[in-house]
Amino acid sequence: MQAKFPSESLTTMTDVVLPGETNPLNNLFGGELLARMDRAASISARRHSRRVCVTASVNNVVFNRAIPLGSVVTVESKVSRTFNTSMEIFIDVWIEDRESGIKNKANEAIYTFVAVDETGRPVPVPAIEPQTELEIQRFDAALRRKQLSLVLAGKMKPSEATELKALFV
Amino acid sequence: MQAKFPSESLTTMTDVVLPGETNPLNNLFGGELLARMDRAASISARRHSRRVCVTASVNNVVFNRAIPLGSVVTVESKVSRTFNTSMEIFIDVWIEDRESGIKNKANEAIYTFVAVDETGRPVPVPAIEPQTELEIQRFDAALRRKQLSLVLAGKMKPSEATELKALFV
Amino acid sequence: MQAKFPSESLTTMTDVVLPGETNPLNNLFGGELLARMDRAASISARRHSRRVCVTASVNNVVFNRAIPLGSVVTVESKVSRTFNTSMEIFIDVWIEDRESGIKNKANEAIYTFVAVDETGRPVPVPAIEPQTELEIQRFDAALRRKQLSLVLAGKMKPSEATELKALFV
Amino acid sequence: MQAKFPSESLTTMTDVVLPGETNPLNNLFGGELLARMDRAASISARRHSRRVCVTASVNNVVFNRAIPLGSVVTVESKVSRTFNTSMEIFIDVWIEDRESGIKNKANEAIYTFVAVDETGRPVPVPAIEPQTELEIQRFDAALRRKQLSLVLAGKMKPSEATELKALFV
Amino acid sequence: MQAKFPSESLTTMTDVVLPGETNPLNNLFGGELLARMDRAASISARRHSRRVCVTASVNNVVFNRAIPLGSVVTVESKVSRTFNTSMEIFIDVWIEDRESGIKNKANEAIYTFVAVDETGRPVPVPAIEPQTELEIQRFDAALRRKQLSLVLAGKMKPSEATELKALFV
Amino acid sequence: MQAKFPSESLTTMTDVVLPGETNPLNNLFGGELLARMDRAASISARRHSRRVCVTASVNNVVFNRAIPLGSVVTVESKVSRTFNTSMEIFIDVWIEDRESGIKNKANEAIYTFVAVDETGRPVPVPAIEPQTELEIQRFDAALRRKQLSLVLAGKMKPSEATELKALFV
Repeated sequence: MQAKFPSESLTTMTDVVLPGETNPLNNLFGGELLARMDRAASISARRHSRRVCVTASVNNVVFNRAIPLGSVVTVESKVSRTFNTSMEIFIDVWIEDRESGIKNKANEAIYTFVAVDETGRPVPVPAIEPQTELEIQRFDAALRRKQLSLVLAGKMKPSEATELKALFV
Repeated sequence: MQAKFPSESLTTMTDVVLPGETNPLNNLFGGELLARMDRAASISARRHSRRVCVTASVNNVVFNRAIPLGSVVTVESKVSRTFNTSMEIFIDVWIEDRESGIKNKANEAIYTFVAVDETGRPVPVPAIEPQTELEIQRFDAALRRKQLSLVLAGKMKPSEATELKALFV
Repeated sequence: MQAKFPSESLTTMTDVVLPGETNPLNNLFGGELLARMDRAASISARRHSRRVCVTASVNNVVFNRAIPLGSVVTVESKVSRTFNTSMEIFIDVWIEDRESGIKNKANEAIYTFVAVDETGRPVPVPAIEPQTELEIQRFDAALRRKQLSLVLAGKMKPSEATELKALFV
Repeated sequence: MQAKFPSESLTTMTDVVLPGETNPLNNLFGGELLARMDRAASISARRHSRRVCVTASVNNVVFNRAIPLGSVVTVESKVSRTFNTSMEIFIDVWIEDRESGIKNKANEAIYTFVAVDETGRPVPVPAIEPQTELEIQRFDAALRRKQLSLVLAGKMKPSEATELKALFV
Repeated sequence: MQAKFPSESLTTMTDVVLPGETNPLNNLFGGELLARMDRAASISARRHSRRVCVTASVNNVVFNRAIPLGSVVTVESKVSRTFNTSMEIFIDVWIEDRESGIKNKANEAIYTFVAVDETGRPVPVPAIEPQTELEIQRFDAALRRKQLSLVLAGKMKPSEATELKALFV
Repeated sequence: MQAKFPSESLTTMTDVVLPGETNPLNNLFGGELLARMDRAASISARRHSRRVCVTASVNNVVFNRAIPLGSVVTVESKVSRTFNTSMEIFIDVWIEDRESGIKNKANEAIYTFVAVDETGRPVPVPAIEPQTELEIQRFDAALRRKQLSLVLAGKMKPSEATELKALFV
């Protein structure tokens, strides 16, 4: 399989916030945002792998600012790194000021998807070649995140998590 | 107010089709697609006018092909022409083949929005300058559509609808 | 197939507007109304044809007045004209004042449906015989609308659209 | 206040069953039907009283037959009897065979609503005059149901529930 | 089949009230509460019978107090009595004060479910042995409720409804 | 403020999976599960703090097994550790076999909430005293997770993350 660029899986989902999608504080309900990011990320995973993909884990979702009723919200996702059968998807969420048109970062998130065949068994996905500075930075950090999740799950010894360990020693 | 380009109001809404959004034939429910287009078009209207905008009319929605459960659907909208306080929004809907990644046109639609102030009164919007060949073609056709809707509503005499009349004589 | 009367496909859908169905201005969200009209119109098409029916196009939806949260909304639809395998459905939407009980027209719309067999192929539908003055008026106008959509789609020469042309010359 | 006829509060809500409204057996989800009946009944209560109305109780909902995905369902409700500030609403639910057009009763239900003023305090509603045989029958039975609910709630002595008692002695 | 205790079918569904689930008075929409109770009760029926279960009827739903937007609502259901193939489920609904944590009863309801096999035919369910005082009280009252529904449906003569009749004579 | 036990914030949300909540593979849609966990976790945060709480971040959501249409799903959440104004909530999700009644772990997740006052400013929350072995284990790990998120956000030097560093040196 030929390697792909992150830009090939870029997915843009721009939408408004209606009253039926808010919490009692009149901001976008957190669960609704998590769902929108899941939908966008699943499309990025599919565009990269051309396979059916299922959510494997969600990590590092940080809610920096509330998103008020009536906002225009843009969810942008693309593959940041691949590991044999899994893909890490990086998601940026922006809100746009109605009068000035200026976009501000509302939050970011990392989801992991696995590509599967018709029987549900994981299948290999193409490698990825980061191009922009930000893509390279996220690609590198993805390895440390992967090691971390393996360490936390008891599937890797901390001493073997070379890149992660380097942060601390 | 300075004129704007159609590209400044371009809105992209890519999303999947889940079972809760289908009709009994397992295709995207028509009403759900009409709602998605309304959401995208309202963002285009807002991006052009930087105002609160309300749907004034829906026209020429043509469903060329059914959109099956699980599809990746992209709704793209931008302002095609403005008339004092109203904006005609042209919407293209694409579906994407999972395996090949090829996009096909599923349908197109035209919605009209009006910009309003805090009291709900219509306010003028910036003019628009079409740039691409397709944008110019849609800009020109918009005038005939406008005349047509005025004629059908009895607000313009057919004899005064110069551009429209030219089609028939 | 025996011709039918428009009244045989009359469909009435009375419902309230709940907060989960509003836009940020606290009025019925346009997309939700488009969806309700699609549901009602599909029932009219089915009642006329006794077949599975799919939405072919949406035209001439005019939003005359906003429908506030808590309103009682009545969507009434019936077949206005048939063309071999397709049916034009005329939809009237009313809101009802809670205290006086008076009904006011909120908007109207025209949807077109096609009847299909089990394989999805279009099948002929019964003819229609308009009875009331309004039904006859809508029946006649439907022909001009049909010609117009054929002209706009480049499937009919303007010079051949006899009834439509008569408006302008 | 002048008495009204049940027909003045008749509310008709015809709609289809989409996949997002079904249970895992592919029939209309019971909770969705209960919600539709609540919406229709609240409109009947409002039409009779011209007041804001709130659900006070639900009784005697009997599910006689499952309503399959894709069905056309008609919910019909009207006031069957009033008691000072409360209204008993009788609801009939019909499903319609697509091919023959024949309607069959799917279930019926009884809801009770109370009319309230702006402060939420119950206010008197107009009396009702049943006209058809069925309306009279339901009007009479409503008194026994009212006594029964008072007896079960310990607010009336069984010996004082004259009409109800007559059933058993 | 071995008899079971009501506690074995106890189902707890704690959830919040979001704006999309309210009525125009900003309280939990009655239909949404009816749907939540249906979902909880169906789980109790399934836990008791280990079978697929369908709603047969809804009775005695009393709305004592409105449930405001943002409330924490707990729906608790358990089997109160069984009759060959059917199960009566008793449901208590509580709201919890955010500051004090005190729970108050908002309403209660009784739903009846029937256990079915793969062909949809009713199948016998285990008997039940009430244990607490409240469970015994509800178990006893269930028989009178059963007789009542048979009498009202014309399937039992009032004179044969021994337990019910005893209330009145 | 008096310290509390994790059990005081235990929240149980048992519910079924309906068709409108699935993905195209007929399993519970990931976004819907993320939303249910958000709702349950927000209640735990509120029960611990007796304050309005907002989602600050989502971490370590691991989807171990798909949850098929029709499943009974139990989401259980409780506070695992507090940090001045924030609370880490640990969530376990179980599915229950209909025939055997056996519960299996489907996934787990960690959400962080912040308690706020009426103006939206963070306010201190009570401390927590873990009691069971599992609660103590999660309490201890929470500190490492907190350090990790600070390190990843550039708000703490790796060398100062004492407990986390100990894993690697």
